[in-house]
Amino acid sequence: MKQLTLLLFLCMAATVFAQDIALPEPQTTGGAPLLEALKNRRTQRTFANKELSQQQLATLLWAANGMNRKPDSRRTAPTASNNQEIDIYVFLKTGVYLYDAAANKLLLKVKGDHRKNVGMQPFVETAPVVLVYTADFSKMTRYNEESRIFYSAVDAGYVSQNVYLYAASEKMSTVVLGMVKKDELATLLNIKDGKVLLGQPVGFPE
Amino acid sequence: MKQLTLLLFLCMAATVFAQDIALPEPQTTGGAPLLEALKNRRTQRTFANKELSQQQLATLLWAANGMNRKPDSRRTAPTASNNQEIDIYVFLKTGVYLYDAAANKLLLKVKGDHRKNVGMQPFVETAPVVLVYTADFSKMTRYNEESRIFYSAVDAGYVSQNVYLYAASEKMSTVVLGMVKKDELATLLNIKDGKVLLGQPVGFPE
Repeated sequence: MKQLTLLLFLCMAATVFAQDIALPEPQTTGGAPLLEALKNRRTQRTFANKELSQQQLATLLWAANGMNRKPDSRRTAPTASNNQEIDIYVFLKTGVYLYDAAANKLLLKVKGDHRKNVGMQPFVETAPVVLVYTADFSKMTRYNEESRIFYSAVDAGYVSQNVYLYAASEKMSTVVLGMVKKDELATLLNIKDGKVLLGQPVGFPE
Repeated sequence: MKQLTLLLFLCMAATVFAQDIALPEPQTTGGAPLLEALKNRRTQRTFANKELSQQQLATLLWAANGMNRKPDSRRTAPTASNNQEIDIYVFLKTGVYLYDAAANKLLLKVKGDHRKNVGMQPFVETAPVVLVYTADFSKMTRYNEESRIFYSAVDAGYVSQNVYLYAASEKMSTVVLGMVKKDELATLLNIKDGKVLLGQPVGFPE
């Protein structure tokens, strides 16, 4: 009986874990020359019906806020006092995932397609990938409320610019969204001691 | 007498204008491949006694927040609703200058070396170039105070990440400074309807 319970538990655990997505190794060489990426950086609000490959998704997320200096866990985007308080939630057709930079995985948080719950504008849900940046204020306990708000906003800007430049390099389409459904998203993502900051759909231009 | 006054005025004007710095055309092609720049992005706090060339300074500023789509004045860094509220003040040995992206010029604002007035940390004044990002709230009149603070912080993050990546590409040294002498700088730069956001020294590592 005990063994049956264990087996059942392992099966359930395997099912849960199987819904996480192990990403391929991100590409960390190549891309457009930096100054050309800067020259081509721009906002685009149309998205073709075309998915990113798993490789592109892995590289997008690594570019955004991946670990660029293992084993010391430093990132492609800086944070005030290295608080690393920015989380990226990845809204795909299959679910909402938290990007785990250390494990190079997407951890399933909510099943199903919630892209329409991110932005006010109808184009948002047409993007194959919608990123949502949140701040975890429990990593900023030495700061007062004003500083938490200021630095987490700056730090989200770092991540978002990385996404803009990767999009420019890959001829992808992206736009940052200040007006996102912050209250709905905070509930959906279970953000309690923190803040929903920005959204950023990513795809290919029409 | 009238002509003498005019002549005197013209001479004075020429002297003033002569203190502005016309920058060479920025480099807008080349640089490290984007993903390598992201891989090498990091914070460095030591600065060798070595100046940037005028070309490097022009390209640094263009990368940071230059116009990448003339004639429609769009920038390498986005801003909320294209408010373009971020200004870059450039602290050099010779003076404090405002970066005029449209004219590709540095406009002299305060004579003399004020690098030591930017940051609390002694390494700041050893950098050949110290950037200070400020927000012009008169360009954000449609926003309430909370939104001005939030979006200008995000937008400063965009500019600062461009500087980090250019530094990575050029093997330069840079660090963003949240703790800057905000009150002193606001007085020095005559910021009334706005905010001093961040500092960022740039140079070569020791």
